[in-house]
Amino acid sequence: MNAPKIKHALPVSRAANFAVWYQEVIAAADMAEESGVRGCMVIRPWGFGIWERIQALMDARIKAAGVENCYFPLFIPLSYFAKEAEHVDGFAKEMAVVTHHRLIGDGKGGLTPDPDARLEEPLIVRPTSETVIGAAMSRWIQSWRDLPMLTNQWANVVRWEMRTRMFLRTSEFLWQEGHTAHADEGDARAETMRALEMYREFAETVLAMPVFAGEKPENERFPGAVATYSIEAMMQDGKALQAGTSHYLGTGFAESMNIRYQDKEGGHALAHTTSWGVSTRLIGGVIMTHGDDDGLQLPPAIAPQQVVIIPMLRDDDGDAAVLDYAKVLAGEVKALTALGEPVRVLVDTKATKAQTKRWDYVKKGAPIIVEVGPRDVASGNVAVIRRDALYKDDGKLNSSILPRTDFVGQVPALLESIQSNLFTEAAARRDAAIVPMADWKDVAAYFKGSEDAIKGWAQVNWARPTGAALDAVVEKLKTLKLTIRNAPLDYPTPSGSCVFTGSPAVETILIGRSY
Amino acid sequence: MNAPKIKHALPVSRAANFAVWYQEVIAAADMAEESGVRGCMVIRPWGFGIWERIQALMDARIKAAGVENCYFPLFIPLSYFAKEAEHVDGFAKEMAVVTHHRLIGDGKGGLTPDPDARLEEPLIVRPTSETVIGAAMSRWIQSWRDLPMLTNQWANVVRWEMRTRMFLRTSEFLWQEGHTAHADEGDARAETMRALEMYREFAETVLAMPVFAGEKPENERFPGAVATYSIEAMMQDGKALQAGTSHYLGTGFAESMNIRYQDKEGGHALAHTTSWGVSTRLIGGVIMTHGDDDGLQLPPAIAPQQVVIIPMLRDDDGDAAVLDYAKVLAGEVKALTALGEPVRVLVDTKATKAQTKRWDYVKKGAPIIVEVGPRDVASGNVAVIRRDALYKDDGKLNSSILPRTDFVGQVPALLESIQSNLFTEAAARRDAAIVPMADWKDVAAYFKGSEDAIKGWAQVNWARPTGAALDAVVEKLKTLKLTIRNAPLDYPTPSGSCVFTGSPAVETILIGRSY
Repeated sequence: MNAPKIKHALPVSRAANFAVWYQEVIAAADMAEESGVRGCMVIRPWGFGIWERIQALMDARIKAAGVENCYFPLFIPLSYFAKEAEHVDGFAKEMAVVTHHRLIGDGKGGLTPDPDARLEEPLIVRPTSETVIGAAMSRWIQSWRDLPMLTNQWANVVRWEMRTRMFLRTSEFLWQEGHTAHADEGDARAETMRALEMYREFAETVLAMPVFAGEKPENERFPGAVATYSIEAMMQDGKALQAGTSHYLGTGFAESMNIRYQDKEGGHALAHTTSWGVSTRLIGGVIMTHGDDDGLQLPPAIAPQQVVIIPMLRDDDGDAAVLDYAKVLAGEVKALTALGEPVRVLVDTKATKAQTKRWDYVKKGAPIIVEVGPRDVASGNVAVIRRDALYKDDGKLNSSILPRTDFVGQVPALLESIQSNLFTEAAARRDAAIVPMADWKDVAAYFKGSEDAIKGWAQVNWARPTGAALDAVVEKLKTLKLTIRNAPLDYPTPSGSCVFTGSPAVETILIGRSY
Repeated sequence: MNAPKIKHALPVSRAANFAVWYQEVIAAADMAEESGVRGCMVIRPWGFGIWERIQALMDARIKAAGVENCYFPLFIPLSYFAKEAEHVDGFAKEMAVVTHHRLIGDGKGGLTPDPDARLEEPLIVRPTSETVIGAAMSRWIQSWRDLPMLTNQWANVVRWEMRTRMFLRTSEFLWQEGHTAHADEGDARAETMRALEMYREFAETVLAMPVFAGEKPENERFPGAVATYSIEAMMQDGKALQAGTSHYLGTGFAESMNIRYQDKEGGHALAHTTSWGVSTRLIGGVIMTHGDDDGLQLPPAIAPQQVVIIPMLRDDDGDAAVLDYAKVLAGEVKALTALGEPVRVLVDTKATKAQTKRWDYVKKGAPIIVEVGPRDVASGNVAVIRRDALYKDDGKLNSSILPRTDFVGQVPALLESIQSNLFTEAAARRDAAIVPMADWKDVAAYFKGSEDAIKGWAQVNWARPTGAALDAVVEKLKTLKLTIRNAPLDYPTPSGSCVFTGSPAVETILIGRSY
């Protein structure tokens, strides 16, 4: 039996061109757009509303862990980086540099940096706040009584990027950065794992995005870190997205920033530090995890509006009754609780055709779309579209007519079911695309050919080689544009041998292409 | 009868040196500190917690008005400003200019901007987002159906300042900027006044800070504005703090940014725009409105913690019972609602002396401080300190012993009473320091002498002179370091004549020194 031919809402399908499809989703959902400023985007209300949801729900988790929010300066003196560059090999140098503090007329009707207002020491727009926060901790931490010090910041950061892609890699992005200091290694490692688990739980519960939480290989560690952990999600094109990281930094960072404390015995010791962060990149992950050929699909937990009510207005006397009906319905839905919060509901009364609105909200990924017209007012019904079940088997739009009271009663369960369906579907797609392989030849055969062909990940045994042996692995992977994603914590210790070195394996790793 | 001699918690009193006292409050309350980066501060958890409260409560009001949050780029191309500078006389040129996007080693172990990475066009760190938001509106607005467009952004902005003062004037600060576009003048003016009234209500209800909402004189208008309105608060040294502004920009800004729409008749028209903002400056206002010689006093609505419970621990077997008692009490208080929200309560279990903690929270301005020790556990009592009634008439600390259940029952009323007391006291202080004057000689006599002497405001009749007559007034005021604050909206039209021109007055204005 042939699948029915459906004319989808987007002009490009995921299968036809995933990269173009991604841009189309963002445009069609009014999430963001290019700003005219190189590598910086404008995040529009629907996209920013998603970020506000992510922020609120993540912030609650951060606060519940006893971490306190602060705000540190946007600018960091150049000398702070010089200090870091000495210590850190992988130090990235692509940053926005402020050199002047005034403009003057250029004599041709334009403006130019005033040569008399050159800064003595250039300022860097923060690419991360590691160093300023370290300097503050060095002042704030005197005694064991001040530990642990648990600090977080929500901020914009800038890393000059040559090739940018909205939400995934932009020169300016929004993020949170946690920075903590502890009296000993055990406490610092526990915090590193707490943050990692917070990210895993958040990704899976809130974003409905299945992830592997695991340790990155040595070559992928954050510069200066003793251990780097990540959550890795699989996008629908089979590529990996590193969606959050958590680092145990040992005492090396404390040493370079002079974070010392007096212990209970009166001696002096270096603090053990951690850092951890997630960013607006999570929104890119949501798009590529749940989006389909009709646009975005939002997990209800982060949908700015969970139920969108569209009154079918005809510019006639019946409109007032339809509007009233829509508002009464909205009031009933707003009084409900789903996923632990009041249901977010919008009545869209804009002067646009109802048909256009319906497809706008399909493309925006609103979980439930409700249409009400004069006939519904008369019969006490509503027409309900679930975004996660848009078409019937025959390819027609799947809109159900329900008595209003029945619908209202079902809303919480409906939202919770959409939330869990999205997770289940994404997990099934991902798990089907993870291929255990026992031999490098299989890995090479699987990934050869077009870089854009949709593939999954290889799951292989790993002996944790180091030094030259690790370099050789990295080079081998590079020829196929592959990287080791991480060694999932919940994979059992394998019994075979490493696909690269033949030595007895100590863990299992995931290999794939990535964003 | 002599007032008892009290040894206050701060080393400097308001009366002795208001400016030094201000810095002492910030330091003693752990609100913020200098960052080592010129003009930028580090906002510490207690200070940032206050900002988070302000943000949450203001954002709710902004959203309730149908305004949508967006995010616009940190960087603005130089050419955008060149365009604005052409149109705007009062164009400020003190801005952070990004000229390079990479660092390289300077050959001497340091780093320097890479000459090969010079930007073709310098980027400005946003001093406001007026121009980028205008450019976006020009793209987004096509038809009358797109209007009104109600946009807001929470962001960091940078204005290079030569003399900085924490929270009041810093090179980087945090703010919200509302930018809206409307089909006609009436609608845009209504939005301007809505935002102004939102600020007035917020200042008085949430910050307990009495303000005058009124129009600024022509010479104090935002460059390019048709009308500028402000809320003006009086600090305890008698100086004015402009705490929020709302501008009606007419069609001039739309013209320079090309914000046009097709009207219902198919013609093309310019939009009418507004902008309005408040910033971290509000925190400076709270300090100088409510602070006393013992430190900060926080209105409960913005206190990060409203009730702080200090267990008196002695490092012995009795500690467990005291901690349990404190936690049970915290649970009971947390379950209460005050000022429309769950009560925020903290049990401070840090390893610091209880006596030190008590004074730390006095200095931080926590509204209610509760101490519990072994004797309280035995008797079922608590010792309660109200921050707004710290001392008894005899100068001793005013700590009341209450049965625990009585105290818990009183918490909501207590918090609400502290909130309203702070407003009432501030309003009484302010109103007593506003002096109606009928003659310029009286104004000059009142304000002559030391600029630092604590004075209030002059309330005078005003004929709204313009042109050279206005310039003369501005010059006259300048010699006494005075400015016109605003013409309060709720003052009746006066019947006398203008103190400056002698012409029939049309409104009443307030004159004072300001931050």
